[in-house]
Amino acid sequence: MPETVTAAMVVIGDEILSGRTKDKNVGHLADIMTAIGIDLKEVRIVPDEEDEIVAAVNALRSRYAYVFTTGGIGPTHDDITADSIAKAFGVPCDYDAAALAMMQEAYSKRGLEMTAARKRMARMPVGAKHIRNPISTAPGFQVENVYVMAGVPSIFQAMLDNVVPTLRTGQKLLSTTVHCPHGEGAVAEALAAIQKAHPDTIIGSYPKSFDGKFSTDLVIRSRSAEALAAAEAEVAAMVAGIGKAA
Amino acid sequence: MPETVTAAMVVIGDEILSGRTKDKNVGHLADIMTAIGIDLKEVRIVPDEEDEIVAAVNALRSRYAYVFTTGGIGPTHDDITADSIAKAFGVPCDYDAAALAMMQEAYSKRGLEMTAARKRMARMPVGAKHIRNPISTAPGFQVENVYVMAGVPSIFQAMLDNVVPTLRTGQKLLSTTVHCPHGEGAVAEALAAIQKAHPDTIIGSYPKSFDGKFSTDLVIRSRSAEALAAAEAEVAAMVAGIGKAA
Repeated sequence: MPETVTAAMVVIGDEILSGRTKDKNVGHLADIMTAIGIDLKEVRIVPDEEDEIVAAVNALRSRYAYVFTTGGIGPTHDDITADSIAKAFGVPCDYDAAALAMMQEAYSKRGLEMTAARKRMARMPVGAKHIRNPISTAPGFQVENVYVMAGVPSIFQAMLDNVVPTLRTGQKLLSTTVHCPHGEGAVAEALAAIQKAHPDTIIGSYPKSFDGKFSTDLVIRSRSAEALAAAEAEVAAMVAGIGKAA
Repeated sequence: MPETVTAAMVVIGDEILSGRTKDKNVGHLADIMTAIGIDLKEVRIVPDEEDEIVAAVNALRSRYAYVFTTGGIGPTHDDITADSIAKAFGVPCDYDAAALAMMQEAYSKRGLEMTAARKRMARMPVGAKHIRNPISTAPGFQVENVYVMAGVPSIFQAMLDNVVPTLRTGQKLLSTTVHCPHGEGAVAEALAAIQKAHPDTIIGSYPKSFDGKFSTDLVIRSRSAEALAAAEAEVAAMVAGIGKAA
């Protein structure tokens, strides 16, 4: 059986929990993980509170192969992710000389002053590895299996692009969708029977409602192309037959 | 100092973790909680796995005043939320007679058969209270401080509207409904403009279909009676004007 590689995510930020900012990073990470064959198993959204960040990171890093965090690594007083990650690992948090030098150079070129606030972004748990930030220079960082990245979606995505090639990945989960122009109730029983007959697939049913009309996306997933095709054929035949017997 | 009321959310669904569906319910719940003075403190997104759902619900319901769940209450084999919540509370999960009767009546009117799969949606932890579902009838349910709602955003939002007036909050949220005899498509743009012009209100749009005819309930909410009345007047005028200019 092919290896399964798992991951979890911690989204750090009061602004997500207050509704002020609508998160876009969960969906992006989910898409990327699925594409490279890593199973994203859990996401936690926590406030800008050290105890909450430490608890979430420690709960997840022991359970899953990888933990990705977003948010809280900016220059302001409420950006406490670096300190929280250091605390989770029981190491000091300090200014990183290489990060400071890199930022100093980039800011000089842009005519920006290296203020104390900007310097804060060079703080990280001692011994952490950098995650390169091609957009605004101040790096994310990695401690063991925890990858700490920015909350701004463009920067998060750029950092993640630099992390992805370094990850151990499992076998890619293949996926196909059969659209059903009826509500879930019309297919539920037949679908359960098909799922039972195809244990190497995961069949999900996702209802939609648009302008008061219900339809359902039937998604079949498998690591085997043959198993996927067999289940897809049965689901498609089942959907095509709805109403014909009546 | 006014009392702080806290809440947490559990989003249940493989489709969110795989990236196939992009969650819209976290942002909506966050907005509503902020509007009514409840602090949303944590969100967990978990897969369709009983142990994971039970663990998340039990961890959160003891810590926060309210827990809201979305997803996994449909008719298909992968909808395991009702059983998981029953397990979390250590009570049996069974068919609810009142829910069955309500669904039987609604399905008869729509000419739908009450299949075993549809009946599944009447299963809930014994002793649970219903959360009314004005869109597709099958109710959500409440056990103590845990509110179990649908994952389809329009149904989740409608259920949440029925829950909100029952919650202990800092300041009461007022609400009024303008019925619109057209589908959502006819009002979406005008409604967005009215929402933008009335930032002290939260305006929701809930599509319905009966006998093949579409209509929409436009729900306006606010903590200010004046703001509510002003927005309601604009919404009512907008609805009255539909088709007149054409």
